[in-house]
Formats: sequence, structure tokens, C-alpha cells
Amino acid sequence: MGASPASGARARSGRRPGRPDTKARILSAAKAEFAAKGFDRATLRSIALAAEVDPALVHHYFGSKDDLLLQALEVPFDPREVIPSLTRQGIDGLGSRIAATFITLWDTEEMQMPLVAVVRSSMTSEPAAALLREGFIRMIMGPIVAVIDDRDAALRAQLVASQLLGLAVTRYVLLLEPLASEPAARVIERVGPNLQRYLDGFDVAPA
Amino acid sequence: MGASPASGARARSGRRPGRPDTKARILSAAKAEFAAKGFDRATLRSIALAAEVDPALVHHYFGSKDDLLLQALEVPFDPREVIPSLTRQGIDGLGSRIAATFITLWDTEEMQMPLVAVVRSSMTSEPAAALLREGFIRMIMGPIVAVIDDRDAALRAQLVASQLLGLAVTRYVLLLEPLASEPAARVIERVGPNLQRYLDGFDVAPA
Repeated sequence: MGASPASGARARSGRRPGRPDTKARILSAAKAEFAAKGFDRATLRSIALAAEVDPALVHHYFGSKDDLLLQALEVPFDPREVIPSLTRQGIDGLGSRIAATFITLWDTEEMQMPLVAVVRSSMTSEPAAALLREGFIRMIMGPIVAVIDDRDAALRAQLVASQLLGLAVTRYVLLLEPLASEPAARVIERVGPNLQRYLDGFDVAPA
Repeated sequence: MGASPASGARARSGRRPGRPDTKARILSAAKAEFAAKGFDRATLRSIALAAEVDPALVHHYFGSKDDLLLQALEVPFDPREVIPSLTRQGIDGLGSRIAATFITLWDTEEMQMPLVAVVRSSMTSEPAAALLREGFIRMIMGPIVAVIDDRDAALRAQLVASQLLGLAVTRYVLLLEPLASEPAARVIERVGPNLQRYLDGFDVAPA
């Protein structure tokens, strides 16, 4: 992805413009650091070191480590904005809201190719899988786990993730027909209640 | 995968032993043909031509095109034996039987690595995806579609496939915790009823 409008405007304003390839070099260093060390062990400082720039410049161009990860993975939307808008309304109907948002996002033409690329790349190796797990999936699951709020919350949220990733794989990567061409509304009404059952539909495990 | 016991025994009995690398050469030609042309357009004859052997030899070593595909994909079990044993008992409880069989298979140590490899390789490219779709998934879905037997049967079966593939990705490829370490029985009791709802749990679409 290119610069966000905000950081692009700031760069153009003249305060420390840097060489034109600086931003690309930081992003490339970030991808290498994340792949080599995983999300948790890579730091803005180690990325700056690898890119041979001042750490302040990494922060200036990319913000936080989460911001940098979303750009390194080339995720075309920000889950930190999307997910809280679903969980804010509580757990009732959350399964259908998640299904609707997920399918609407993936059905959007300019989203689909980058999202397919994220799924594909996460399958290529254990480091790539770890990056999706520790970074992107963590950002999505956090608010969902918080709203479930029982002993099985993490497992419930991951079962939801399993259905969503499976839908991504079958509808958008493998392109199984008729599922790939099924109208969004019909898929949402089939998948939503199954997500809801994972969220609140059975007893929690004994302590 | 190596020779099946039956064909291995036949080869050792002396009738047309062939060069020791003939079988490997056929398998390599089959992989290339399947990747280049897809499952439907590759034929035993075109594979024999690419391997520079008599078509009868392809049949001798590998049986049918489905047999050859399972060996080319290195699928460690034969869905043509496993799936009918589940559908033979009808649609009642089929969701739980599918969940139990799927998870037991994937939890088996010697199955897991080859199955992960099948999923990973199917994600790498559209030809690889097409091969999984036209070959392996078709073999699994066929008997399930037959036992559902309503207008939405193909969609229902693919929704089941979406949940199973998503479970494969999250529990065995991405290794999300706690899902990856959850006892099989607990996963089966959570996933089984969701599969059953896809199989028979909502009204079919209007004609």
C-alpha cells in the first residue's frame, strides 16, 4: 500500500523529506525483520537499524508497530477501526454482524486481491503463518474475546476465525462453485448463526 | 507416496518390471500435466506421452486418473474409502461424524504433515487451487452432496468444506492457541452441530 493520506501530506510539507526511497527501504526492512524474528521480537529500533535510518523516521512514516505490520502485510483495511464497531453493540447478533462485515469486505473488488494475497502468503511458511497469527489475527480477535468474556473466550473467537478463514479459502481462493458466486446475503444468513453459536451457543468447559 | 502394496507386489513379481525410475518419471509427468492443464484436461494418455511411456504402464502403476491425482497431491488417505463410510448412515448425525473423522485424521501424526502440505500447496497458485477443487474436493464432496439431496446440496456441502478447511488452516497450519492444543473431543462437539446445520439446518432457496 502507498503512504496514508496523512503521512504523505506531512512528508510533502517539507519537514525532513528524506530520500524518496527511504519509506520503501523502511517497509522492506520491516518485512524482512518481521519474517526473520516474528512480530513480537521485531522492534521499531531493529527495523530502523536494518533500514539504516533513525528510529524516529520509522515512527514518522509508519506510526506504531501495528501500523507497520498492517502495511508490511499489505492488509487493505484497518481491523482496529472495523472490529470495535461490531463488538460495541454487544454479543447479541454479533455472529451476523461479523459475517456481514467480513463478506462485504471480501466481496469488494479492490479489497479482494490484497486479502487473497495475505491469506496465500500466510500459508507459505511457518514464519509467515506466525506473522498473521501474532499480528493481524490478534488485532481482530482482541475485541471479540473481550466481548465474549467467559473462560472459553479465546477458543470461541478462534472457532469464529476458523469459519471466516475457511470461507476466505473456499469462496475467494479456491473459488468453489456455487459458493463463490452465491449472493452475499444468502451466505451471511447461512454463516452468521453458526458464528453466533461459537460465540455463545454452548456451555463453557468445567473449570 | 510410494507404491501401493498391491502394485508394488505386482511390479516385483517380474511381469514387465520397467526401469526403476519409470514410476517416478510418470508421477513427475503427472504433476506437471495436472499443474499445466488442470485435472479435467490432463489424461492418462497425455501423461504417458509426457513421461515417454506406454499408457498401459501408467494404468499398471497408478490405476485410474483419480488414483494418480491422489498420489500426485500426496494425499495420505483415500477419500473414496473414508467418505462413503460416513454418508452410508444417512444425514442424521452426519455433521458430527464428518467432524470426528476429519479431526481424528488430521490429529494423526503421520497424516498431519502431508495434509498441511496439500493445503499449503493448493494456496500457492490458481492452477494448484484448481487441482484441489476439481480433484480432491470433488471426491470428498460427491457422496456428501448425494446424501443431502435437495436443491441447495452443492452449496450446503461447500459450506461444510469451508468450515473444515478453516479448521485445517487455524488448528494445523496457523497453530492458533488454544485451538491447536484443544482435545479432539471438545473440538468435535463444537464443530459437529455447525456442520449439521449446514447440511440440513435451514430452508432451501426458493426455486
